Amino acid sequence: MKFDNVKAIVFDTFGTITDWRSSIAAEGVRIAAQKGITDFDGDAFARAWRAGYRPGMARVMSGERDWVPVDVIHRERLDEIIPNFGLNMLNEEERVHLNEAWHRINPWADSIPGLLRLKKAYLIAPLSNGSLVLLSSMAKRAGIPWDFVFSSDMHKAYKRDPKVYQNAISLLGYQPHEVMMGAAHNDDLEAAREQGMRTAYINRPTEYGVDQSVDFEATSDWDIITDSVEGVADAMGC
Amino acid sequence: MKFDNVKAIVFDTFGTITDWRSSIAAEGVRIAAQKGITDFDGDAFARAWRAGYRPGMARVMSGERDWVPVDVIHRERLDEIIPNFGLNMLNEEERVHLNEAWHRINPWADSIPGLLRLKKAYLIAPLSNGSLVLLSSMAKRAGIPWDFVFSSDMHKAYKRDPKVYQNAISLLGYQPHEVMMGAAHNDDLEAAREQGMRTAYINRPTEYGVDQSVDFEATSDWDIITDSVEGVADAMGC
Repeated sequence: MKFDNVKAIVFDTFGTITDWRSSIAAEGVRIAAQKGITDFDGDAFARAWRAGYRPGMARVMSGERDWVPVDVIHRERLDEIIPNFGLNMLNEEERVHLNEAWHRINPWADSIPGLLRLKKAYLIAPLSNGSLVLLSSMAKRAGIPWDFVFSSDMHKAYKRDPKVYQNAISLLGYQPHEVMMGAAHNDDLEAAREQGMRTAYINRPTEYGVDQSVDFEATSDWDIITDSVEGVADAMGC
Repeated sequence: MKFDNVKAIVFDTFGTITDWRSSIAAEGVRIAAQKGITDFDGDAFARAWRAGYRPGMARVMSGERDWVPVDVIHRERLDEIIPNFGLNMLNEEERVHLNEAWHRINPWADSIPGLLRLKKAYLIAPLSNGSLVLLSSMAKRAGIPWDFVFSSDMHKAYKRDPKVYQNAISLLGYQPHEVMMGAAHNDDLEAAREQGMRTAYINRPTEYGVDQSVDFEATSDWDIITDSVEGVADAMGC
């Protein structure tokens, strides 16, 4: 069988396993309501916050700034957008709590059922740009059954830097083709395939809502192409 | 309260969480029986195998040899002792399987109940000299509910090298006193305390059986002194 040698499956987390947009929108609406704002656009807030993510990582990846965990990038972007959403009144404690909304995002409905099936046959872990505490807290709260956690802090690099994939393979002590990457983002899979990993594309065409401009479908012949983590489990015969 | 600031508790694994001696002894007896050896001394086999562990790590720590995962140290020691136990007939596949007995060792009876209680209030993880696949496979098989895994491969160092403790604290992004080390070995706690960590001594006076020469009791005023992981949960008010 094509995947006979696969021993571990690692997953992108934001967007692939979890639905950050609806989770962050709900947290925004909640804190806005506490402040008496009743017409808060949670979806716009989530998308605006997320829009700072790639540029924030890009500054680290280019060497323009030293390594910082993604929580710092989240916080800087939060402070940047807060005035546009009428949330200037938030004090430090409230901002810290709101920033940790990224530790509390919820999985897509198919993620945990699919991961529980895969976990019986494979080691499963995130291969995410999240920090260790972010990914562990998120998994604990939502019941995501990871066997272990790869966090960007361990690699001191962000995807799609080849170092992330290389370091994960090396820490596992497996051959590259014994490790599969699951992601909703074609460029993540492209980077994984360049290192010799197996690839599973999980279509999440609503991840970014009205801001989505790419990843409406698989753009290459990935080893698995599906629209859920349960679909990966089906393809792997779990 | 004394431990108000603790956010994560990390544990030594071999001996503290798991009973390697009885588990390895049983695996030895099993394979010996398959080969027609009925008077196999499983306990002596387990202790002889384990006796190569610290010297093997010491060669890495001294710089005498480059980094190797603990699985390599286990395998080299296995090949060394096999003639003394009449197991020369084992082929490569059988040796690989037997070496992975360290991935299949069982927890002490109090470990999982205690960890499940602690997990509700703290991030919990191993801080072990085991490799990533060893620790993850062991946890998956036995149901050890780690939130994430620190493996020696991530630090490229073995305890009691200060780098191990420093790197764990740094990856968590916490203050040293916000992280507690739980161990059955006084020198492990000494090294953790030197980095500013909180300490919990879990007495395991039968770990090494007739070979045990130290760690029959706490030799310092550790923050918690108990004889089980459930005792740590009691002390932490979980």
